[in-house]
Amino acid sequence: MKIVVDAFGGDNAPLEIVEGAVQAIQKNKDLEIILCGKTDKIKEILNGRDERIEIVDAQEIVENSDHPTEAIRKKRDSSLVRAYDVLKEREDVVGLVSAGSTGAILAGAIMKIGRIKGISRPALAPILPTKLDNDVLMVDSGANVDCKPINLLHFALMGSAYYSIIYNKENPRVALLSNGSEEGKGNELVKETYPLLHNAPINFIGNKEGGDYMSGEVDVMVADGFAGNALLKGSEGAVNAVLSVLKKSIKSHFSSKIGYMFMKKTFNELKQRIDVQGRHAGSPLLGCKKLVVKNHGSCNRINICASIEQTIKLHEKHLIAEIENSLVKLNLAEGE
Amino acid sequence: MKIVVDAFGGDNAPLEIVEGAVQAIQKNKDLEIILCGKTDKIKEILNGRDERIEIVDAQEIVENSDHPTEAIRKKRDSSLVRAYDVLKEREDVVGLVSAGSTGAILAGAIMKIGRIKGISRPALAPILPTKLDNDVLMVDSGANVDCKPINLLHFALMGSAYYSIIYNKENPRVALLSNGSEEGKGNELVKETYPLLHNAPINFIGNKEGGDYMSGEVDVMVADGFAGNALLKGSEGAVNAVLSVLKKSIKSHFSSKIGYMFMKKTFNELKQRIDVQGRHAGSPLLGCKKLVVKNHGSCNRINICASIEQTIKLHEKHLIAEIENSLVKLNLAEGE
Repeated sequence: MKIVVDAFGGDNAPLEIVEGAVQAIQKNKDLEIILCGKTDKIKEILNGRDERIEIVDAQEIVENSDHPTEAIRKKRDSSLVRAYDVLKEREDVVGLVSAGSTGAILAGAIMKIGRIKGISRPALAPILPTKLDNDVLMVDSGANVDCKPINLLHFALMGSAYYSIIYNKENPRVALLSNGSEEGKGNELVKETYPLLHNAPINFIGNKEGGDYMSGEVDVMVADGFAGNALLKGSEGAVNAVLSVLKKSIKSHFSSKIGYMFMKKTFNELKQRIDVQGRHAGSPLLGCKKLVVKNHGSCNRINICASIEQTIKLHEKHLIAEIENSLVKLNLAEGE
Repeated sequence: MKIVVDAFGGDNAPLEIVEGAVQAIQKNKDLEIILCGKTDKIKEILNGRDERIEIVDAQEIVENSDHPTEAIRKKRDSSLVRAYDVLKEREDVVGLVSAGSTGAILAGAIMKIGRIKGISRPALAPILPTKLDNDVLMVDSGANVDCKPINLLHFALMGSAYYSIIYNKENPRVALLSNGSEEGKGNELVKETYPLLHNAPINFIGNKEGGDYMSGEVDVMVADGFAGNALLKGSEGAVNAVLSVLKKSIKSHFSSKIGYMFMKKTFNELKQRIDVQGRHAGSPLLGCKKLVVKNHGSCNRINICASIEQTIKLHEKHLIAEIENSLVKLNLAEGE
């Protein structure tokens, strides 16, 4: 199986990206990787470890400050655009992994690869931990900040298919983000979307509030990308805020420092529960004709390796076919 | 000074509400309170402590399940509607405190009291702690789920005036919730609102993401009520999720239990930082002609007392006049 990796996207590129690719190659005997970026730098890091690794040279880099569609159009010799060219032109390349600019990854996916037929908008679907042992998916987390009900319906179908695959869970619980759990609550978009989700071939459990996001009661939270982004980042920020207050207080009391040593197990468990990036490094761009997995800009080699393996799994479990199937089921349900 | 209190709104009514009113009376020598609700029950709780307390009888109760505007129209003998009647009809009554249904409190404010001239929509403005020593205000938190740019402009003016008063801070930092901090990021609503806030007589610090909400860098976060609600409740939920994971883990490890005893100081500090309800029990409904302060449904006597004192402070510091002033300044700025 072949996967293309943007070796020059992300804060820790190219070192961590290339090392992550090497790890993935070592762990997966049938994997081949195409690294896009400056050949000499990549070779320097590889230092001979080039088994099943091909390099496609690209001299430019897409920056976070670049305008996304402009960058895809004009930076033709960038590592991201070259990676998209490889994904587009080579049939045997099944997916792309990048830790570069979210906007540019999204623009590239739409401009170079295109949407699955019937899907109105691709969506970004990152995962957050909950207070229980499960994780929760947010779809959309910011790729689409102005949405119509049909977009949210497609987010729900795609999110459900994706969650099923990565957690091996049939009929994950899909909720619609609202400002109250009762039917009839919500803004105009939510009110119009509710009946669509209710009639869709998914396990729709109704409206849920932002406070339910990390409760463990929801598997897939569907939202327009603006509110979804606010909820996702707000939750992350709140977790960080609590940890920051704890840290500061522990440092300022001698007894707390001692207590902290006794509580190492507990803080490690918390850290593990929170570290969703370790479990699912990447967020897929759901709805594209080929697999595109976006990494956090700050990711390291472990995350990159995890994202490559996630791409393998999504390919082997036929994510794209599953999404197409759910569209067929939807059409059948609507035709009834 | 006279304040009217809905004695039968909230999960712990009437006991906690009446006791909270008694506390406020004991602490504030110039305060008079009008309690609305079932006279016999209120008298039973007061048990003779009726100095500077008047009772206005009301036999009905507005439930959370009632349709808000219907409830205001039809439940004329409810504690909430009677309280609004008192607020409306008696000039010397300066504010209303209720822990009842948010929707009904909002509907009553609009139908019975009316908006400040020039304010397009009243807004709910609750407070959350940050990881630093300051608190952050969210306006709007769910009263208005479909907004126009002019609404957000008014939220910003009102939030700024309110924050200034309760924290005694001039020119609080007002941010606009978006999915990226750069100008130009955001949905259509945010893009259209940005220049309005930029030109308004406030300390506008630009777009901020959901993750910045509890960072301590923002005093007033302006958002449409849908995204604002998602962010506010998501942040609260995330804090609870972290505490829940910690609690569970502490219980399951002996060493952590010991550690917890040493860390009591730190957990108390965290609790105190988080307990914003203790500091600011109520959320004012900004933009009404008279002061309306809404309490959390689960509030206790301490919170009710704090809300009554908050209402006193907002009256003494002329919140409504301050909002009117900022509208005048806005018009002057626009006329330039």
